Amino acid sequence: MSKLPNVGTSIFTIMSQMAAENNAINLSQGFPNFPVDFRLTEILSKLASENVHQYTPMSGLPSLLEKIAILTKQSYQRTVSPKGEILITAGATEGIFATIQALVKAGEEVIILDPSYDCYEAPILLSNAKPIRVSLNSDFTPNWEKINNVVNKKTKLIIINNPHNPTGKTWSVDDFLQLEKLVDSYPNLLVLSDEVYEYITFEKKHISINERSKLYERSIVISSFGKSLHITGWKVGYVIAPVNIMIEIKKVHQFLVFSVSSIAQHAINEYLDIVDFNSIRTFYQEKRTLFRNLMSETKLELLPCEGTYFQVASYAAISDETDIDFTKRLVTEFGVATIPISTFYANGDDHKCIRFCFAKDDKTLVQAAERLLKL
Amino acid sequence: MSKLPNVGTSIFTIMSQMAAENNAINLSQGFPNFPVDFRLTEILSKLASENVHQYTPMSGLPSLLEKIAILTKQSYQRTVSPKGEILITAGATEGIFATIQALVKAGEEVIILDPSYDCYEAPILLSNAKPIRVSLNSDFTPNWEKINNVVNKKTKLIIINNPHNPTGKTWSVDDFLQLEKLVDSYPNLLVLSDEVYEYITFEKKHISINERSKLYERSIVISSFGKSLHITGWKVGYVIAPVNIMIEIKKVHQFLVFSVSSIAQHAINEYLDIVDFNSIRTFYQEKRTLFRNLMSETKLELLPCEGTYFQVASYAAISDETDIDFTKRLVTEFGVATIPISTFYANGDDHKCIRFCFAKDDKTLVQAAERLLKL
Ligand SMILES: CSCCC(=O)C(=O)O
Ligand SMILES: CSCCC(=O)C(=O)O
Repeated sequence: MSKLPNVGTSIFTIMSQMAAENNAINLSQGFPNFPVDFRLTEILSKLASENVHQYTPMSGLPSLLEKIAILTKQSYQRTVSPKGEILITAGATEGIFATIQALVKAGEEVIILDPSYDCYEAPILLSNAKPIRVSLNSDFTPNWEKINNVVNKKTKLIIINNPHNPTGKTWSVDDFLQLEKLVDSYPNLLVLSDEVYEYITFEKKHISINERSKLYERSIVISSFGKSLHITGWKVGYVIAPVNIMIEIKKVHQFLVFSVSSIAQHAINEYLDIVDFNSIRTFYQEKRTLFRNLMSETKLELLPCEGTYFQVASYAAISDETDIDFTKRLVTEFGVATIPISTFYANGDDHKCIRFCFAKDDKTLVQAAERLLKL
Repeated sequence: MSKLPNVGTSIFTIMSQMAAENNAINLSQGFPNFPVDFRLTEILSKLASENVHQYTPMSGLPSLLEKIAILTKQSYQRTVSPKGEILITAGATEGIFATIQALVKAGEEVIILDPSYDCYEAPILLSNAKPIRVSLNSDFTPNWEKINNVVNKKTKLIIINNPHNPTGKTWSVDDFLQLEKLVDSYPNLLVLSDEVYEYITFEKKHISINERSKLYERSIVISSFGKSLHITGWKVGYVIAPVNIMIEIKKVHQFLVFSVSSIAQHAINEYLDIVDFNSIRTFYQEKRTLFRNLMSETKLELLPCEGTYFQVASYAAISDETDIDFTKRLVTEFGVATIPISTFYANGDDHKCIRFCFAKDDKTLVQAAERLLKL
């Protein structure tokens, strides 16, 4: 009867609730627990009494679109048309939903690389299309042999997520070369590139689809002010795509939400004049270093973290439990909420790994590590 | 190639742009041009520095859900469960989109009553379902004979809009009795009731689906704080539906936007303690009276206006032009932007009528009427 029979309560909701019930430290759902930059909240506070409370234009506030074009040029040397190639969305999630619904037709296929974030499948199923799951390699790099095996003429979209949630893995130049070969061989194939953590990478600089001219023409890039500016509750993201693709995405967006919070767009527009996106990187790199140092004292084994504000750890050395059971024990007995990595696999693959969110103030990270020392 | 081949730029965008280009008074797109209640903007300004910038729970801020339940009880004597039967959405538009996508399957049919607002069709087409258009009677009441003729076993949804945009018509008890008969005869038929102008009715009190117990179990009710609180740019609406239906709508909402602006929800939550929804009615009733009095001096013939902030007028007595041509002439030669009613008909039916939005300060309404005196 249901169009989405397998959708239950999301793991992020479940774990945040369990954290609250157990009075645990919540390192599960990905959101910062520290205050937002006071310069941004001051802009917001000031704007409240101004004339910013009615619809913006459908594609977004024109001056914000222009600033995103400038940011895209600065970050990726890509010139995009503010009017034609950028769309402000109600969070990255709406951008992803609108993109998939606009482009994927009944009977077509979409490749998802597992482990993957949970929002890609529903818009595919609602389009009466078919998600095709391909597992990443054990080091979380794309498995090109497997991908090349499943891609076919019905494949409309491949969804990539770089930097990767939940694993923090980033794409190499070689991966992009492989992807370029793939789209060359399949003229109808498009790439949906979820880059919401683009400004949170560490030793290696982020490589965006925006920088790869061959791919750009065949791609849709998803960004998130929620992630980049520590304001997940604002629900403002954006989509960049070539005009011919963007026209279709806007058609869906127009009837999906029409427009996005006006005051939020005005505030971000002003804030972009003063915020330094590089400082976001430094900020989270310090958090990562602190958290990894603290955690290295525990019995958990830390996997590499190249980007995002997530740290994956293996508990294989200390327990045989499923990652779901282990996660439950961590929150109830040790007072730390995390996310079991198996929930990011459509087939539930259990690698005995859990995900921590380290977008938290230092005190919280220190406390969590102290609790986990008892493991 | 396109999944929505017939979607172009919306008439609201086109007319607001023409208004700007011609330096015209914009009575086309429906949005207030007067300041928002300073008590609300003060709440917003104060909240900016508080801890309200991360995700709320997926269904909405719990305290706001509770206040909506109280409001629903006060307004319609209907008890709804805050957790189970209410969902906060990114504007009414997202609520409508999520509802249709959640409930309507490929091959099913959805009845739309023309003239109708423009956002219903896209989610139907994207579900590979079929919109069935039925024109209202010439006085804009539902034509039950025609409706009963087209409804069949494949009809999943009938969309009603009460009070009605663009005509300002409201439903009578008799219409509801007819609808009750209809859903009795078709056990799979559900009702999507777009009631975004529920608090803007005049001589006759609004009758909500929430008041009709027989219908409630088979219906989804759409509401809009954007309309009720003069904040169209905030993009906050809500959906009320019985638990079994709401479960499906939430599944789509979860992956469509996940959650809605946190600060907006917090601000509305506080404001609901002090705002009086009856004053909205009085406020717009005075606007309507003023505008109708002013316009009665012109050569346009005013149709009845029972609700909404829209006034329809016929120009049949003074011109044979199509309503699109007449609208263009009004904006370029007379400096007043309106909406041609034919654009609300899928078949483009031209009744020589145009729509004015009177959610404007008195000075604007006076100026517009002065300009139209020259007609
Ligand atoms: C929308 S809740 C999930 C937040 C998030 O991005 C994550 O935890 O992975
Ligand atoms: C979303 S723009 C249209 C606003 C409106 O409700 C109308 O003008 O009918």
